[in-house]
Amino acid sequence: MTSGRHLNVTVWNENVHEQREASVRSIYPNGMHAPIVEGIRRELGDVDVRVATLDEPEHGLTDALLAATDVLTWWGHAAHDRVSDHVVARVHARVLDGMGIVVLHSGHHSKIFRRLMGTTCDLRWRSDPGGEREVIWTVNPGHPIAAGVPQPIVVPHDEMYGEFFDIPQPDELVFITSFEGGEVFRSGCCFVRGAGRIAYFSPGDQEYPVYHQPEIQRVIANCVRWCASTTSTNDSPARRQANAQRGWFSEGEPPARTH
Amino acid sequence: MTSGRHLNVTVWNENVHEQREASVRSIYPNGMHAPIVEGIRRELGDVDVRVATLDEPEHGLTDALLAATDVLTWWGHAAHDRVSDHVVARVHARVLDGMGIVVLHSGHHSKIFRRLMGTTCDLRWRSDPGGEREVIWTVNPGHPIAAGVPQPIVVPHDEMYGEFFDIPQPDELVFITSFEGGEVFRSGCCFVRGAGRIAYFSPGDQEYPVYHQPEIQRVIANCVRWCASTTSTNDSPARRQANAQRGWFSEGEPPARTH
Amino acid sequence: MTSGRHLNVTVWNENVHEQREASVRSIYPNGMHAPIVEGIRRELGDVDVRVATLDEPEHGLTDALLAATDVLTWWGHAAHDRVSDHVVARVHARVLDGMGIVVLHSGHHSKIFRRLMGTTCDLRWRSDPGGEREVIWTVNPGHPIAAGVPQPIVVPHDEMYGEFFDIPQPDELVFITSFEGGEVFRSGCCFVRGAGRIAYFSPGDQEYPVYHQPEIQRVIANCVRWCASTTSTNDSPARRQANAQRGWFSEGEPPARTH
Amino acid sequence: MTSGRHLNVTVWNENVHEQREASVRSIYPNGMHAPIVEGIRRELGDVDVRVATLDEPEHGLTDALLAATDVLTWWGHAAHDRVSDHVVARVHARVLDGMGIVVLHSGHHSKIFRRLMGTTCDLRWRSDPGGEREVIWTVNPGHPIAAGVPQPIVVPHDEMYGEFFDIPQPDELVFITSFEGGEVFRSGCCFVRGAGRIAYFSPGDQEYPVYHQPEIQRVIANCVRWCASTTSTNDSPARRQANAQRGWFSEGEPPARTH
Repeated sequence: MTSGRHLNVTVWNENVHEQREASVRSIYPNGMHAPIVEGIRRELGDVDVRVATLDEPEHGLTDALLAATDVLTWWGHAAHDRVSDHVVARVHARVLDGMGIVVLHSGHHSKIFRRLMGTTCDLRWRSDPGGEREVIWTVNPGHPIAAGVPQPIVVPHDEMYGEFFDIPQPDELVFITSFEGGEVFRSGCCFVRGAGRIAYFSPGDQEYPVYHQPEIQRVIANCVRWCASTTSTNDSPARRQANAQRGWFSEGEPPARTH
Repeated sequence: MTSGRHLNVTVWNENVHEQREASVRSIYPNGMHAPIVEGIRRELGDVDVRVATLDEPEHGLTDALLAATDVLTWWGHAAHDRVSDHVVARVHARVLDGMGIVVLHSGHHSKIFRRLMGTTCDLRWRSDPGGEREVIWTVNPGHPIAAGVPQPIVVPHDEMYGEFFDIPQPDELVFITSFEGGEVFRSGCCFVRGAGRIAYFSPGDQEYPVYHQPEIQRVIANCVRWCASTTSTNDSPARRQANAQRGWFSEGEPPARTH
Repeated sequence: MTSGRHLNVTVWNENVHEQREASVRSIYPNGMHAPIVEGIRRELGDVDVRVATLDEPEHGLTDALLAATDVLTWWGHAAHDRVSDHVVARVHARVLDGMGIVVLHSGHHSKIFRRLMGTTCDLRWRSDPGGEREVIWTVNPGHPIAAGVPQPIVVPHDEMYGEFFDIPQPDELVFITSFEGGEVFRSGCCFVRGAGRIAYFSPGDQEYPVYHQPEIQRVIANCVRWCASTTSTNDSPARRQANAQRGWFSEGEPPARTH
Repeated sequence: MTSGRHLNVTVWNENVHEQREASVRSIYPNGMHAPIVEGIRRELGDVDVRVATLDEPEHGLTDALLAATDVLTWWGHAAHDRVSDHVVARVHARVLDGMGIVVLHSGHHSKIFRRLMGTTCDLRWRSDPGGEREVIWTVNPGHPIAAGVPQPIVVPHDEMYGEFFDIPQPDELVFITSFEGGEVFRSGCCFVRGAGRIAYFSPGDQEYPVYHQPEIQRVIANCVRWCASTTSTNDSPARRQANAQRGWFSEGEPPARTH
């Protein structure tokens, strides 16, 4: 399975839990970004994947890097407030201009996701030791982000994320999850904002090896491919300004009316 | 809690299981329509509720009755194919013209719902003796059909309906259900078609006393009220035809252009 | 035509053009808010309408006022950047909690609308002397915000607002406008965010007597009524926190499983 | 510009006007399907395009052909009622199973489109001699069906199609048109039904050379590519039935609960 064109992907990881907690390090010795990168490479083939983390200058998200990125993936949890507002504004503008973004798990509370959604993005959660079984059902079976995954996907142990999840109604809802405790969650959500696409996929936590699971890696890769399937906008602010001054008609005169 | 205006509601019930099966009769001695009517009356106050059933001439759904009905509720299961195509076409036209319809449980496979949806409306199901626990979560907490219900609603015993449910993506998704077996279901779905509103609410089965449960009765009443909250269309076919001949401008001449 | 319950409405007006420009004052001698208030009172009947403006302390939008407001209408243009971020955050939180907001015309670029949308809310525009004819078509003829208006509504002279309008796809699109220059615009858009409802209605400019036009007043009143037709949320953060600690089941123990 | 995989496309044309009317034949000497085929070939590259018409046995739409078709395009007008119900049912089932369909212009009243939509698909129209200018605006500038087209597209002469267009709210609205007479129309609409995608694109009439216009050909090709961008469903009826009997879990036993 390959995408139709070469893609440049940037995998962003807060990379804090991995430094601090031995339990996380034992599951993700090379960082949570490692299996995410591995899955994207395996599933998408013709792709360049770079990694950027919180501690780099500008969190690794320079103007140059973003300009050269087709799709950015985002994992954060413990340090959302340490992400600079300036970088958030830059990512936000780039998404509206057409870059895709795949927001993962606790990224629901990141500054960038909340800014794109316009809501609190709060949810119900429970983190019992050992986690609980998550069952992920496809509710849009022809959607590209569900390509090649079983119905349902079962994650043996995950943290519970439950409704009400305070997001705008997704433009396309693809996955709904149930947890052993009886909760449900809209776990695969697609949004369009400006010329950009946003996918949110909730499974995955620093305490469980969810990102090593091949079906989960496949969905993330599918999200990357879907987020890249936009086109260059035909309506940039620059074009709009020109049009506002001279009218949209190209010859300076509106076409004649026939009656 | 009362609605803002007087409503005329018709509760349609296939009324077949109640005749045939003692187990159903013991739960619904006066027919499944009885507790549905009772709940609508209790919750909505200023309302006239009539009952119509399959065995009546024209299934009780005459032109005159439909013309006088603001909202129709629909329960069917064993005899979908005995509903006349002519009556289905009549109900369909009336919905597009502005009558609301609340489709309940196994009504997902009724001719009228499939015609309105344009899809198979197939779903996954399992009917174990005794049923299983259904937990109904609100995912749109300000929506009128969730008014006054707890988060979540728990139905102790119900038949499992699971995804993939082959419907168009709802215009508004209000409830998502989980079952003990781990399945999920979009159990409260709102659609607009023409000038009419359609609500689908899945809990309820002839084998369990679901329609006696006050929260379930409340949701059904909320659905009726929501389906009635439309307005007379400002764009009827009659108006359209007139406009096609003379243009939409009222004085026979288009307004002058300013440039 | 009356709403089903008593409503408290706050009409917010920047009220800057009216102070500065004689041309605006001649059209709106008592401020643009005056005909907006008049229309809401005439159409909704059982309603309390208060006015708040930019120059008041806290722009007139105190916590107490917002807590007592069912629906806020918003007109701003020349001084979006003078609205305090603190007040914007307060209005934003109140909308997500269930207060409705009706954003008018140039309010598309207000801080509150941009924050709720998560996009730039940029659009194409042209302001020729004298304006041009705007024709407003209903594309959802049963929708409450189109109640009682002709198909189409004609505004003889208005400022052109054209696509691409950088907003999320509306949850419900009700009006589309054409202008004499050939542009189109999604002029009546409905959104749900959190437990709150948002209506955007574009006709209306300080240079033209659009807000004196009865059909326009009616649509604004319809928007107010629609934005008020939510219910108290059944899923507040306070409830969520409690649930996170003890599980959603009310008796402290999950219901028994049947198999 | 090429699609990511080889596509099999069937272009269906009623092909009645071309036989009957010299005026149509002079514009489309090889049938309206000829420029549609030409545009798809030019834009998509790696594609097999076949033509099928009303007068062929089974209208050319055999089970074998449909099974081998990724995307079907549909043009009809004068003879909708001559299309057999049996063939319509076959196409309908194939769309829900994942075949794309691109419905063009007067195809809005075809049996297949009305069945998929569930509504009347009526619209306002006017056909003046010579037609009138149609201006097509992109309202979703990153959408694949708007790839590579100008903002706006201008069609010098076309038949007027205006709102209210009685369709379900599109899952994605991409183009809105204005006409010289002041009407507007949702001219580029995307729907998902089952595992299939449906695009409706309104420009084009037998009386005008619209299908020879390169931008229009490009949009149709874009629609074909978008409709093909689904995946094999992971939830077929066959799988569902199996699951209903044994539960969705693969080992015959549900995973143990952790609490």
